Amino acid sequence: MQKLKAGILGATGAVGQQFVRLLADHPWFDVSALAASERSAGKAYVDAVNWIGSDPIPPSIRDMRVQECKPDLDCDFVFSGLDAKVAGDLEAAFAKAGYPVISNARNYRMAENVPLLIPEVNPDHAALIEHQDWGGDGGFIVTNPNCSTVGLVCALKPLSDAFGIESVQVSTMQALSGAGYPGVSSLDILGNVVPYIGGEEDKLETEPRKLLGTLAGDRIEMLEMAISAQCNRVPVLDGHMETVSLRLRNTASAEDAAEALRSFDNPLAGKGLPFAPEPFIHVFDDPRYPQPRRHASLGGGMTVSVGRIRPCNVLDLRMVVLSHNTIRGAAGGAILNAELLVDQGYLGA
Amino acid sequence: MQKLKAGILGATGAVGQQFVRLLADHPWFDVSALAASERSAGKAYVDAVNWIGSDPIPPSIRDMRVQECKPDLDCDFVFSGLDAKVAGDLEAAFAKAGYPVISNARNYRMAENVPLLIPEVNPDHAALIEHQDWGGDGGFIVTNPNCSTVGLVCALKPLSDAFGIESVQVSTMQALSGAGYPGVSSLDILGNVVPYIGGEEDKLETEPRKLLGTLAGDRIEMLEMAISAQCNRVPVLDGHMETVSLRLRNTASAEDAAEALRSFDNPLAGKGLPFAPEPFIHVFDDPRYPQPRRHASLGGGMTVSVGRIRPCNVLDLRMVVLSHNTIRGAAGGAILNAELLVDQGYLGA
Amino acid sequence: MQKLKAGILGATGAVGQQFVRLLADHPWFDVSALAASERSAGKAYVDAVNWIGSDPIPPSIRDMRVQECKPDLDCDFVFSGLDAKVAGDLEAAFAKAGYPVISNARNYRMAENVPLLIPEVNPDHAALIEHQDWGGDGGFIVTNPNCSTVGLVCALKPLSDAFGIESVQVSTMQALSGAGYPGVSSLDILGNVVPYIGGEEDKLETEPRKLLGTLAGDRIEMLEMAISAQCNRVPVLDGHMETVSLRLRNTASAEDAAEALRSFDNPLAGKGLPFAPEPFIHVFDDPRYPQPRRHASLGGGMTVSVGRIRPCNVLDLRMVVLSHNTIRGAAGGAILNAELLVDQGYLGA
Amino acid sequence: MQKLKAGILGATGAVGQQFVRLLADHPWFDVSALAASERSAGKAYVDAVNWIGSDPIPPSIRDMRVQECKPDLDCDFVFSGLDAKVAGDLEAAFAKAGYPVISNARNYRMAENVPLLIPEVNPDHAALIEHQDWGGDGGFIVTNPNCSTVGLVCALKPLSDAFGIESVQVSTMQALSGAGYPGVSSLDILGNVVPYIGGEEDKLETEPRKLLGTLAGDRIEMLEMAISAQCNRVPVLDGHMETVSLRLRNTASAEDAAEALRSFDNPLAGKGLPFAPEPFIHVFDDPRYPQPRRHASLGGGMTVSVGRIRPCNVLDLRMVVLSHNTIRGAAGGAILNAELLVDQGYLGA
Repeated sequence: MQKLKAGILGATGAVGQQFVRLLADHPWFDVSALAASERSAGKAYVDAVNWIGSDPIPPSIRDMRVQECKPDLDCDFVFSGLDAKVAGDLEAAFAKAGYPVISNARNYRMAENVPLLIPEVNPDHAALIEHQDWGGDGGFIVTNPNCSTVGLVCALKPLSDAFGIESVQVSTMQALSGAGYPGVSSLDILGNVVPYIGGEEDKLETEPRKLLGTLAGDRIEMLEMAISAQCNRVPVLDGHMETVSLRLRNTASAEDAAEALRSFDNPLAGKGLPFAPEPFIHVFDDPRYPQPRRHASLGGGMTVSVGRIRPCNVLDLRMVVLSHNTIRGAAGGAILNAELLVDQGYLGA
Repeated sequence: MQKLKAGILGATGAVGQQFVRLLADHPWFDVSALAASERSAGKAYVDAVNWIGSDPIPPSIRDMRVQECKPDLDCDFVFSGLDAKVAGDLEAAFAKAGYPVISNARNYRMAENVPLLIPEVNPDHAALIEHQDWGGDGGFIVTNPNCSTVGLVCALKPLSDAFGIESVQVSTMQALSGAGYPGVSSLDILGNVVPYIGGEEDKLETEPRKLLGTLAGDRIEMLEMAISAQCNRVPVLDGHMETVSLRLRNTASAEDAAEALRSFDNPLAGKGLPFAPEPFIHVFDDPRYPQPRRHASLGGGMTVSVGRIRPCNVLDLRMVVLSHNTIRGAAGGAILNAELLVDQGYLGA
Repeated sequence: MQKLKAGILGATGAVGQQFVRLLADHPWFDVSALAASERSAGKAYVDAVNWIGSDPIPPSIRDMRVQECKPDLDCDFVFSGLDAKVAGDLEAAFAKAGYPVISNARNYRMAENVPLLIPEVNPDHAALIEHQDWGGDGGFIVTNPNCSTVGLVCALKPLSDAFGIESVQVSTMQALSGAGYPGVSSLDILGNVVPYIGGEEDKLETEPRKLLGTLAGDRIEMLEMAISAQCNRVPVLDGHMETVSLRLRNTASAEDAAEALRSFDNPLAGKGLPFAPEPFIHVFDDPRYPQPRRHASLGGGMTVSVGRIRPCNVLDLRMVVLSHNTIRGAAGGAILNAELLVDQGYLGA
Repeated sequence: MQKLKAGILGATGAVGQQFVRLLADHPWFDVSALAASERSAGKAYVDAVNWIGSDPIPPSIRDMRVQECKPDLDCDFVFSGLDAKVAGDLEAAFAKAGYPVISNARNYRMAENVPLLIPEVNPDHAALIEHQDWGGDGGFIVTNPNCSTVGLVCALKPLSDAFGIESVQVSTMQALSGAGYPGVSSLDILGNVVPYIGGEEDKLETEPRKLLGTLAGDRIEMLEMAISAQCNRVPVLDGHMETVSLRLRNTASAEDAAEALRSFDNPLAGKGLPFAPEPFIHVFDDPRYPQPRRHASLGGGMTVSVGRIRPCNVLDLRMVVLSHNTIRGAAGGAILNAELLVDQGYLGA
């Protein structure tokens, strides 16, 4: 297979840098265009970016010229790491110009005909693409969920399939990298917890219902499921932890739930998607685990960890969920979405 | 009033040090005896203790001789900061010898005729003292709850009185000082979260029901209330944060709840107990608050903070609770218990 | 004595907030005016400020109207917590208009006729005021040193007096609050060290020579002393630590040095300046001390701590120095300067 | 080549675990024996060890039986991660029994006929092996330096060769993992700096002189060079940072020094030792670098980083040095030593 040419919108931002990093040796995609704000356009990437990571900028990207975010990039599709403030207009412009847009921004996630996609969870939702009409030729938008949503939904999916879920209580302990760069001031978070992340609870209470919903022609029928989210920032670099309690529709023991998670019939099995982790979900028996610093990077940051599965005294079941917020929860999730779309024929066919 | 002479059992441990610190200038109590393990006995306090704090050892205590934990101390009553491993036998020995024991240990908290006491919450439970018979003259045991229990119960009490509480979901983010010294290894917790604290959830699911229960002669009738606790350790020095969701027995809005917390009829009002904070409960409107590093020490570490009072999508109400785990949640709580007992005539009459 | 009316320039910034906090109950000074940027002017302080601290805004300040930084404030003198970008012009404007300016900004520190002042170190340098002529009536500027300079110089002064100092090697471990708010991104510093603080080494290599220099009429003769500084940022909230090695002019043992530090003839002794700490310098014998989290706040953050005084294998003596960077190293130092000027008759006479 | 069979002494400790981890896929060595204290002996490794890492125990090691540290292990040589308290006797016992001992313990580092070895720095010192006589057949001891020594010496070697070094001032900021597990209490170090590490300064002031010394028959002639070390613990997980100032014997500019570091004639070049990093030394131009969290793992944790090379106002040159304390500074360094000995024919011939 010829590699597909990928552009990156918002290439100098925190999510954009993660795209650059993760795509460096991708077997299917070649980064052929970097786009950012006017201020960066025209510069070499190394001069335009405030590279956050400890690793060097990939050599093939380092001296690439940054372009403006205009739909004249030389690429087969674009990844969007754009800030929500500008993503709405810019992503639409690219879709209208015929570019498939694989977006991490929140703007179109809840749009009726836009797939909000986690490949292991709702790959069939990709079919909404066929109901998008941007007026151009072949353009569409596909989104991945918010970083605190993705771990939760990955852990809920096998349980929802097996037992049905009526309601979810979730309290998060979220990593600093979720706030971008420079993001959270060290003076606010060193040795501290901040019990509020603007807009986060709303996303976490909404997106799962679409992700676990049912494709109904040109729209998704949202899952009937109440979610209560309390989002906290903690002094952790990467990895969102979530304590979760569930009311199930059908009775299940903790053992049943662990078994459902371990034996989930992963729709990506055997497809050979490069970013599909093995395992999709790792279930810990040790009650001290998972921990963000130790396990966020399992499966290259794409595996979701679950631990402490127990009965709940108030609802039915409790557990702890961990996922890497900038890999599975952002750029890595978007890349896996693109891989799924290749597999399904929506990209590069 | 003549000051009462107080002994401290376990005076060299983390809780014992907090007793030493907080009692340094106490208007009612004078530390007259320090007791610790055989290893420390006979040494000057300064030589026996690995003083954790940033402050100097109070000058009056520094050179005091440490004694063994035998019930021949020169004091009117003892505070116990003993480790649970030895507290059972030693506290009983002191009670039998006629000493009132104001204990922070967990051993007797759930014993039928031992008050588990928070002065603002259940001062009438102190009457259980009259049903204790240790065989000696005037000896008894009174306990304060676990450090993660106390903040929760202080916040629940006004709501329980006003609306009734059917069930509670609580997820904690607990400070390092709760594990004593040396406690948690820095390698385990720097930039990390540990989703497990041995024994903690059990205490948090049990003690509140006694604290909010009803005195029924020689025992406490436990409150009917289901509690589900998920306890996490976070890299914070002092202050346990808890996200809480409640099912109420009677309908109440978030505003009703805030009002109930703000207008709680504090039974300590006007009594002039030195460690009784003003206010008992501080309600924050700013959604970013409370935060442990910034607010754990409100009211000298005795005020309990509540914030983010909101409706819950799954149960009825949500909020965030913060309390100082080594002051309100340990030594300070025990001192306030002793003050209450003085006020009630059980101590020093 | 009638209290003097003090204005605060840059009142909403990190240093300005520290002025507000520290002046809340000052026995000599009353905050009568708050000035900040145009954006803040006209608002109540509580609405204009992003209050960083854990403590509430002092009630007397909370609703005070913020004014523009124009020299028409109702006050006897001003404290300046202005950013260096604007301090040059604004402080000059106030001096020209006849206001004494007690500044924490760096702009005029090295100006020939401007005192760079630490009251315990070089109180006679205040006489430079008499050589300032701003064209108005009674206006002048007095500055305090950079936050990393002050601890070092306080520790050097007694040694310089006693033995003479030829050269100084200093390696710093500086707190986050030194960078202002929001300052250092948590992503840059959590579990990390940054071996560079822009402009810091230059100040630390220059200012001490003026502070320890000799008043020579209308200027300061700089001390002949070579300084080599290596400045690092560490994940600490408050308190700059410095490892120091010295080449002395006259031989001295570690014991001699400790004795010189302990018996320093503090020129503020007996003057009753409210912010003058007791002791000025605290010398630790315990090799584990001083530590920033534990000792930065000694003496209300105004005491300078010294420990680990030992012979050096390369130069002559080694030691560790700690001082609170936002109190002794900024607002508190400026307030002590103002108190000295009152004592000397330059202020409020 | 047939793989050599390696035993690990102290296999359950922090250093021992690092040996297990790093040897998992080693192309030359197979872990054939795990030895630890009596308490662990007889258990499967997974049951005996408190595995610190985030990664799983290598599958081939997980169920291996732990043996006592007696010289009857089935292996060609042993790595020793023993604690200094027991390493003296146990390592001697293995050497007497004919085992080559590649030790990370400090006990024999300064022994006259024991090589203290960094392969890139003093590979010829390995010849001391020929002057050891433990009474048995083929047994010897080779050591690697203390974790704070190794980074410094790697950075000094090219400068010493090129210009000569007369004296060294070094101030360290050392990681928590250097103290083993559980090591430093989180209550001591969160948001703090501890200016003292027992015994560390002595090692750092002594070992470099042997490492940079000259092989003189059956002993090493120590380099004439004064070292002054001030060692601090900081809240960093891995990677010791050091600010360094040097007095050179011959004049050199900062550029000369950078060039000497970059063009160092690495004696391992072309030898294909698996743990020899490329590059040996990485020189940063960006003044913000190196940083421990970002760069300690360069070259798999074996590359030493140098930055901020500048003239010094007191001595001649300044720089910042970073090395990974548990890889290059412990187990990884020992493994590279073993590889060197294979290359030289002392092992496995």
